[in-house]
Amino acid sequence: MTGRSGRRAGKPDTRGAILAAAREAFGARGFDRASVRGIAADAGVDPALVHHYFGTKEQLFQATLAIPIDPGQVLSTMLDGDRDRVGENLVAAGLAAWDSPAGVAAAALLRSAMTSEWSARLLREFLLTQVLRRVRRRLDLDGPDADWRLGLAASQMAGLLVMRYLLRMEPLASAPRAQIVTTVGPTIQHYLTGALDLPAA
Amino acid sequence: MTGRSGRRAGKPDTRGAILAAAREAFGARGFDRASVRGIAADAGVDPALVHHYFGTKEQLFQATLAIPIDPGQVLSTMLDGDRDRVGENLVAAGLAAWDSPAGVAAAALLRSAMTSEWSARLLREFLLTQVLRRVRRRLDLDGPDADWRLGLAASQMAGLLVMRYLLRMEPLASAPRAQIVTTVGPTIQHYLTGALDLPAA
Repeated sequence: MTGRSGRRAGKPDTRGAILAAAREAFGARGFDRASVRGIAADAGVDPALVHHYFGTKEQLFQATLAIPIDPGQVLSTMLDGDRDRVGENLVAAGLAAWDSPAGVAAAALLRSAMTSEWSARLLREFLLTQVLRRVRRRLDLDGPDADWRLGLAASQMAGLLVMRYLLRMEPLASAPRAQIVTTVGPTIQHYLTGALDLPAA
Repeated sequence: MTGRSGRRAGKPDTRGAILAAAREAFGARGFDRASVRGIAADAGVDPALVHHYFGTKEQLFQATLAIPIDPGQVLSTMLDGDRDRVGENLVAAGLAAWDSPAGVAAAALLRSAMTSEWSARLLREFLLTQVLRRVRRRLDLDGPDADWRLGLAASQMAGLLVMRYLLRMEPLASAPRAQIVTTVGPTIQHYLTGALDLPAA
């Protein structure tokens, strides 16, 4: 998905040098302000080689975090449906992704983010620009309310993932996905689109 | 609080030996089935010395996890109030504890539980027997419904703590506690006592 078959074209450490420069740039400047051109310069390679190895800037960011699925694809599917079902769809898709082989990488990323400030910074940036921004657009959320709504929804989703996959506490650890969707989906929906007592702007 | 002033009475490694034995016993057999007598035997000391160093079995368990506050005390205060405010009270007390110096130890414990299966086991056991069991009794929750309600409430609380203290995502990271109590308290309350679509027993 990220054009890794191009590996044969470069020096053995070119890919690693690009990833290291990207990790540094995305963490220090954030996704929006980091540029493929700047990352290429830091790695001492031509920008075309970055695209050749990793595809788009989004894909480079995913590769930096070793995330094997494209959140844009996953999210576009789950955000396509009824606005009133976004909460359930987000829980369903999140659990499906974590129950898939990609879940191992996701768990490793979450663990890493809790013990390394740099990883936490990258994960925050990833959630903000690759996940929450898409939800925000889909739901036409705006202003300080939107930050609260997305933050609260993310907190419930994060807690669900932590309890089910990292701490493995029952009944959430073994429950069928559909049951969790039914009970947690409405909470996420409420945070995103329901009546909340939020701080005045 | 845990009688550590008794340290002068024992060999330098007695305390450590008891803690190691307790960590092993609580993780392997669980809080209820582990006994102070058995832990003392494993550590090669008299049970009286365990009590002398650590106080009660609950306090020994807290010491095993390096938790500097007594959840029994904290919870009795927050559970004393109105049943309909338990959600808000739990969020308020949880945030107050994590904003206190004890929060550093709590964060270390949570991090450790996500990277070590043994620590995860101890934390699960701690949450189940020292925290959730008290909430369950206070609210007279019973049956499989109770496990779901407590698990869901714990997931929202865990996610809130992860976002605010470990990943430090805004606006939750910097928001005043009162604002978070207002927005997240009702979710916890809903999980504990509200109408949920839970699996048939």
